[in-house]
Amino acid sequence: MDNFFYHNPTKVIFGKETIPQIGDEIKRREWKKVLLLAGGGSIKTNGVYDAVIDSLQSAGIEWVEVWGVRVNPLLEKVYETISTAKRENVDAILGVGGGSVIDSAKAVAAGCKMNDIWTAFKEKIEVETALPVFCVLTLSATGTEMDPFAVITHEKEKKKWPISGPALYPVVSIIDPSVQASLPAIQTAYGGIDAMSHIMEFHFMGTIEETTIALNESLMRSIIKTVDRLQENPADYNSRASLAWATTLALNGISGIGLKGGDWATHFIEHSISALYPHIAHAGGLAIVFPAWILHMQNYNPQGFQRWAQQVWNAGSVETAVEAMRAKYNRWGVVTSLYDAGIPASEIQALADNAFQSSPLGQLKILSRDDIVLILQLAA
Amino acid sequence: MDNFFYHNPTKVIFGKETIPQIGDEIKRREWKKVLLLAGGGSIKTNGVYDAVIDSLQSAGIEWVEVWGVRVNPLLEKVYETISTAKRENVDAILGVGGGSVIDSAKAVAAGCKMNDIWTAFKEKIEVETALPVFCVLTLSATGTEMDPFAVITHEKEKKKWPISGPALYPVVSIIDPSVQASLPAIQTAYGGIDAMSHIMEFHFMGTIEETTIALNESLMRSIIKTVDRLQENPADYNSRASLAWATTLALNGISGIGLKGGDWATHFIEHSISALYPHIAHAGGLAIVFPAWILHMQNYNPQGFQRWAQQVWNAGSVETAVEAMRAKYNRWGVVTSLYDAGIPASEIQALADNAFQSSPLGQLKILSRDDIVLILQLAA
Repeated sequence: MDNFFYHNPTKVIFGKETIPQIGDEIKRREWKKVLLLAGGGSIKTNGVYDAVIDSLQSAGIEWVEVWGVRVNPLLEKVYETISTAKRENVDAILGVGGGSVIDSAKAVAAGCKMNDIWTAFKEKIEVETALPVFCVLTLSATGTEMDPFAVITHEKEKKKWPISGPALYPVVSIIDPSVQASLPAIQTAYGGIDAMSHIMEFHFMGTIEETTIALNESLMRSIIKTVDRLQENPADYNSRASLAWATTLALNGISGIGLKGGDWATHFIEHSISALYPHIAHAGGLAIVFPAWILHMQNYNPQGFQRWAQQVWNAGSVETAVEAMRAKYNRWGVVTSLYDAGIPASEIQALADNAFQSSPLGQLKILSRDDIVLILQLAA
Repeated sequence: MDNFFYHNPTKVIFGKETIPQIGDEIKRREWKKVLLLAGGGSIKTNGVYDAVIDSLQSAGIEWVEVWGVRVNPLLEKVYETISTAKRENVDAILGVGGGSVIDSAKAVAAGCKMNDIWTAFKEKIEVETALPVFCVLTLSATGTEMDPFAVITHEKEKKKWPISGPALYPVVSIIDPSVQASLPAIQTAYGGIDAMSHIMEFHFMGTIEETTIALNESLMRSIIKTVDRLQENPADYNSRASLAWATTLALNGISGIGLKGGDWATHFIEHSISALYPHIAHAGGLAIVFPAWILHMQNYNPQGFQRWAQQVWNAGSVETAVEAMRAKYNRWGVVTSLYDAGIPASEIQALADNAFQSSPLGQLKILSRDDIVLILQLAA
């Protein structure tokens, strides 16, 4: 078991009717003006926006709004929001939405303290200073509500890259699972797949970290069980809450304890897919790449992959487990091949080129460009 | 699933050769003088003391030492240490040892900011202010290294009571599992039983919190598996590390998510046993009371107890699971009845009286004095 340190300073407030606490959480830290960052407007129809605004008003917090963060969020929007934040001289950034909004809020918060935030992406600069970030999460998936990461797409350069650093942990994240009851079934499935993928990025690095391995197995089984239940009944609050908490635990550090920081090659390969095909959701890309990566990599940690097959999928072989995983994702309405996603095999070389820009990729094995091509072929 | 908030500010530094980091962790927060609190002297034979002192010296931290914290630590020693801390004008308390030492360090840290620390125990005052606490943990068991609790015994009044509050989270805890390789097998077993008990105090409050329930099952199975392995081979580092991390997770908040704060009646009943019979280790008392409490309480959450029987003990009934649990504890060298611990059945009334002083006891059911007697009879 590798040495590690664990320090997660984010305060999570979780449960029904918790959104009205956001104003007081900001006020008690003596911040007076925030930039409220949001997406396309769904928070205006599900009551979240009104709850946030009422809470800010009651607490006497001023705010300025920026709307229009989209899925696979763009650097351009981050730049625009940084300008507003600086001009308006805000004390903190409040992201209200899903992972794209929160990731953008983090990039803006860091960008307010740098000349050019893209430098941090390009040069992998650890973000030590940023405006404080607050979150009201409306879609449980990425884990960004309790992690130090953000992923942003540079549209012109077709690069979807991450930044990280201790200053990117949100100060407070509010998660009210009940506001997710109205999500389309596919969004719930994507959330589960995203979280499964985060766990797997860590999981396959290990065998002897018994506590983390067993904990991850329990998280993966919980995700499968609760997504299944929510496909039946989207209003099942307890399953919604269990899934929401599992997606947070999937990337708040707990699932990676002792596992060398994880592999993350799959994420980088996926980032190429959604950088080149922005209509593909991040989790949609992961559903395509992860099964293929597992098939390609299984001999690099046979004990780890076989225990996973057995414990998570009740399967006697890795191949059978991957089949079960693809079948499950398909039943949730998610495609698991490039072909079904509308990406012809002729695009594999271009995808591999894009992914290979982020090289070195992977930890369990550092992938060559050929490895990436082989994985994409298994995903074809 | 109940609403909750989760915020654990403790930084854990975990792994081999991590103790030398303690000095820099104190120095970077600009504290200059600490009170080093320790137990009976075992840290002088296993190299921990030398590593700590070298690290403090290198970082230019002054220190004053207080020795002699014992198992089931005493209020009197806490008072004596508070006097020293005040007289020496230290900035922080550094506990080096097991749970008794760390709990005492927390009580001292809080006591330095109060007229009489016992008031906080008596009046259940939430501890909001204390000197900062640093830990170097040498025995994984109580979870105190990442929790906001401390338990101290008032010897004259025969009261073993807890305090808690946000100021009691350690600032930094260092856990080097390799220093535990030389522990007697019984201490390892006690550590595992203590952690199992912490999980169970939360666990039986729930059924529908799928993520927490499954996570707790995985932690309990990991503890059983790793203690088994360590009984065979105490020097098995990976099992030692997995067990150490499981004991931390058992009480750092994760295991109680959505579970209404847990039940804790068993802990209070146990505290009476070790308050009246201080030679009995806390985990030794829990090994006696918990199986009996489960038998007494199983009908108050039949689904929860039965899933536990199945998932943790692979048993078809709660009775069979409790038998398996007692047999396992016995194989680890731990007795599971009052009789085997040398406490005659004639003492049950006195134990019940002592425990009932802390009433109301329990959450799954608030226990009457008769309930406590019945539980102790099942433990006879």
